[in-house]
Amino acid sequence: MVCPQFVLFGDSITEQSFRPGGWGSALADSYSRKADVVLRGYGGYNTRWALFLLDKIFPLQSSKPPLVVTVFFGANDAALLGRSNERQHVPLLEYKENLHRIITHLKNCSDSMLVVLITPPPVDENGRSQYARATYGESAVELPERTNETAGTYAKSCIQVAIESGVPVIDLWSKMQETVGWQQKYLSDGLHLTPEGNALVFEELLKILSERGLNFVDMPDDFPHHSIIDDKDSQKSFQGRK
Amino acid sequence: MVCPQFVLFGDSITEQSFRPGGWGSALADSYSRKADVVLRGYGGYNTRWALFLLDKIFPLQSSKPPLVVTVFFGANDAALLGRSNERQHVPLLEYKENLHRIITHLKNCSDSMLVVLITPPPVDENGRSQYARATYGESAVELPERTNETAGTYAKSCIQVAIESGVPVIDLWSKMQETVGWQQKYLSDGLHLTPEGNALVFEELLKILSERGLNFVDMPDDFPHHSIIDDKDSQKSFQGRK
Repeated sequence: MVCPQFVLFGDSITEQSFRPGGWGSALADSYSRKADVVLRGYGGYNTRWALFLLDKIFPLQSSKPPLVVTVFFGANDAALLGRSNERQHVPLLEYKENLHRIITHLKNCSDSMLVVLITPPPVDENGRSQYARATYGESAVELPERTNETAGTYAKSCIQVAIESGVPVIDLWSKMQETVGWQQKYLSDGLHLTPEGNALVFEELLKILSERGLNFVDMPDDFPHHSIIDDKDSQKSFQGRK
Repeated sequence: MVCPQFVLFGDSITEQSFRPGGWGSALADSYSRKADVVLRGYGGYNTRWALFLLDKIFPLQSSKPPLVVTVFFGANDAALLGRSNERQHVPLLEYKENLHRIITHLKNCSDSMLVVLITPPPVDENGRSQYARATYGESAVELPERTNETAGTYAKSCIQVAIESGVPVIDLWSKMQETVGWQQKYLSDGLHLTPEGNALVFEELLKILSERGLNFVDMPDDFPHHSIIDDKDSQKSFQGRK
């Protein structure tokens, strides 16, 4: 394989990124023939559990570490104690420490790797409870398992980690809330992303990649475009390519 | 990286398979945590040019050859001589021979690799000429650069190669034409696929994968589902995993 790798490492919002309209698909399509987009999304995972995957997904001795890794955790860490999803909860300080450990591990894999942090999205508590009632009916728990305020504190910690580590960050929590009607426009169930929400992640990521010379337009194709192949002597067009 | 690879090798119909509704995205989404779907689509390429890529994309000495490779060429080989796309034309017998060479190379990479041939789709000549007029205006060439009949002879040769090589094949040319209105339902410009056309490729491929025990439902996750992680002793849930 000749292409550099972009690895998408995160929870369900990453795992679902190849669904119709997904930001993973948009990346894979845009970077076709430039980079391979590798999906490492783990629904339900928090940063504590993500740490156990690091050595397996990103072995330190790899001869071909990824060029870009997105790290997109926090939505589950921010699940509230004493509510239905409390087993996923990770205390705020541990979340910060875990993100630091993830970044340190990735930088140990490759000092030139571009690590991009993404904050958890905002939470629409009405959307969550509508989803819960639609899914679980009368047995749906009344109290929200996540709040937007708590998600915001995790988002702020994520940004703090990015500043401390000198890596770029997408502040999805703030960015989405800049738009009136973000609750329905960007979120499908109060937490996961609509196609518009996915498009926003893609656009913000593309900005960061572009600032670092990694816009797909600037990257070379792996092999000649068909229009420049010499149809009388096609071998010539492929000579000297690695 | 711990997942087996599915490589999609083909022309523009493969290259575009991560666009919204694409069959590549559908595979990547369905096989998330089971297999990595790798895009190797080369718009405009015929089998003659594809041969030059084999050693680079599928090195014989690879320690981790793909588990599955789809080979989806023919739409460009079938471009007519004496028409606007004649530089892409490959004679029928050479097309057959090239497909055999591709399959032989892949089997030399790994005897256990599942190679799936896909025939070119049917051609809607009206759709092609509407597309040409919309794209090139008055300068659009009147005579079609591809015909459905010719695509059909390439499709039949592709099937013949599959039989001779003992590999499964998706007869997309015939399958699409079983449906009344296939021209608009499955083709966006007389040649490339609509979301419904993409869904058909995905469904047919899933049938072949399922027959060989490779339905995503039957394949193990790379890491534990979050619901079975012991939240009191999470390390225990990750011990002993490769």
